[in-house]
Amino acid sequence: MSGTSPIAPQCPIPAATGDTIELAHGGGGLLTHRLIERLFRPAFAEAPEDLTHDGAVFEIDGTRLAFSTDSYVVRPLFFPGGDIGTLAVNGTVNDLAMCGAEPLYLSVGLVLEEGFAIADLRRVVDSMRQAAKAAGVRLVTGDTKVVEHGKGDGLYINTSGVGRLLAALPIAPGRVRPGDAVILSGDIGRHGIAIMAAREGLGFEAPIHSDCAPLAMPVRRLIEAGVELHCLRDLTRGGLATALIEIAETGNVGIQLDEAAIVVAEPVRGACEILGLDPLYVANEGRFVALVPAADAERTVAILRRCGESAVAIGNVEAANGAAAVRLGTIGGTRVLDMLTGEQLPRIC
Amino acid sequence: MSGTSPIAPQCPIPAATGDTIELAHGGGGLLTHRLIERLFRPAFAEAPEDLTHDGAVFEIDGTRLAFSTDSYVVRPLFFPGGDIGTLAVNGTVNDLAMCGAEPLYLSVGLVLEEGFAIADLRRVVDSMRQAAKAAGVRLVTGDTKVVEHGKGDGLYINTSGVGRLLAALPIAPGRVRPGDAVILSGDIGRHGIAIMAAREGLGFEAPIHSDCAPLAMPVRRLIEAGVELHCLRDLTRGGLATALIEIAETGNVGIQLDEAAIVVAEPVRGACEILGLDPLYVANEGRFVALVPAADAERTVAILRRCGESAVAIGNVEAANGAAAVRLGTIGGTRVLDMLTGEQLPRIC
Repeated sequence: MSGTSPIAPQCPIPAATGDTIELAHGGGGLLTHRLIERLFRPAFAEAPEDLTHDGAVFEIDGTRLAFSTDSYVVRPLFFPGGDIGTLAVNGTVNDLAMCGAEPLYLSVGLVLEEGFAIADLRRVVDSMRQAAKAAGVRLVTGDTKVVEHGKGDGLYINTSGVGRLLAALPIAPGRVRPGDAVILSGDIGRHGIAIMAAREGLGFEAPIHSDCAPLAMPVRRLIEAGVELHCLRDLTRGGLATALIEIAETGNVGIQLDEAAIVVAEPVRGACEILGLDPLYVANEGRFVALVPAADAERTVAILRRCGESAVAIGNVEAANGAAAVRLGTIGGTRVLDMLTGEQLPRIC
Repeated sequence: MSGTSPIAPQCPIPAATGDTIELAHGGGGLLTHRLIERLFRPAFAEAPEDLTHDGAVFEIDGTRLAFSTDSYVVRPLFFPGGDIGTLAVNGTVNDLAMCGAEPLYLSVGLVLEEGFAIADLRRVVDSMRQAAKAAGVRLVTGDTKVVEHGKGDGLYINTSGVGRLLAALPIAPGRVRPGDAVILSGDIGRHGIAIMAAREGLGFEAPIHSDCAPLAMPVRRLIEAGVELHCLRDLTRGGLATALIEIAETGNVGIQLDEAAIVVAEPVRGACEILGLDPLYVANEGRFVALVPAADAERTVAILRRCGESAVAIGNVEAANGAAAVRLGTIGGTRVLDMLTGEQLPRIC
């Protein structure tokens, strides 16, 4: 029970201030990764190899299941295109989908701050109900805790989910191979900009809505069509760049992207310029990448488009050649994408 | 997505101030119940009948599973006999056990406050590792979020768990029958008093340790022995009284208890007197009640004692006769136990 146990890992967690948690530890970038690799992995020795993965998969009495958890601390609670309730349902639905599973059952853990308006709680709970219905999952168990005023921020939600594994083979960075195509399911950056605009009271000409949406159906269609899914990843904290860097590092491959193929809607691009944000690192809540054999690329794009996604092939996988990097080909040349070292936008989900 | 949706329930949540969340909404007593019944149940229409139950049970492809979630906001984080990490593992292990399941896999969702000491996080994570090992469960998936300083209280943990259902028949208040015996697994009130003492800096002659412990093994032994378990409930927020009132109301039965049979350790009793607390309502984290047919009562006590529990029969179930109440027989007569209307001790788990 003490940190001085001989089994306890002794390596320090580097951070700007060294010994306390910073916002960037929750940002999905470099500090999050160090926390996972240096603190959680040694302690949870039996955890699966890839702790950056969206969920765990296991078998109980012959039934193959996926299991995932996510806490939601988004600020503000309500934003164009959704609220913390829609986010909490779709986020965990999507984590299960990225494991190649059909999401079935969700749990809901609420941490409420004393003084929180019950009308707002009712609105969030109703959003959860609607999002669950739309995603075809059932909210079956829950828990409510209340903390004193000033010890929370209105409402935090944890959802965990259980799903039936549909994919016969593992869907994981380890299966990504040189030659694979990288398919992106739609345009990027909408969720992060919607949150930022709501938070800062920025009024854009046309309001930007979050892309928050369930992704289980398109994944299911890909699996049913027999597409060989090597890896799936939804683009949340840290955006497209962080997701692909994680996959490249875990799978020990290089990824070459074509910047011109990556769609950023004009209002999102404009907002990113004003706010000084790189859309490649801005959060999404209804977009994912699929890494599939080149032979399956065209079919993957076609299936996703039939599901209403604006999918495009944005690049391909190469041998790492000693550096598991993501390279972005632009008009002006090629640049290597780095993992975020700070926190671009805290409390985005 | 709005509270004005025609499907949204319109009934108000009564509360002292009427329209905002109070600490008592998280206390497990009357306000928690109203929140569940008037807000969560109408919104989560597909949820199982008994939302006060410790978890959900369902079947996927022929495999019968239990699924449970709990958020932990205990203050202080470290206390005699455990910390928030041991609590978070054992609490969810116990919720699964109370469904009649073998706990197998746990998820961990952390909400960290900016500035939290990484040494403390390491200590908590190590406690979770040890508690998981002791309970025979695997921590397989996780999530970390960080909120700004002043928007949390160091560390909140959600754990959710999946287990294999062992019991052939449902274990639920609806199965409780007049004539059933009420078996209590040990003495009560240790966890609540340990927290209170740590919080208030009270120094008792002998420090009182939390009873925090996993309960999966004793439940497993009862099921393996073929004991007909009608209902199981671990005694957390609200203590023994609240657990039994919930069972009586949901199962529509009366429960008659013998005060003399309920063991309260002398230091706990003394602390309760000093603090003005009723031990029947004080939280526990390693105690449970089993409601079984009278014919199984003696065997249940014997099996639990072989597992190291100090089990005793404390009462029996009667017909409700119009009032699903819990009556406590004392030397001086009989009193009806009421559900807590306020918050006896906030943030106990």
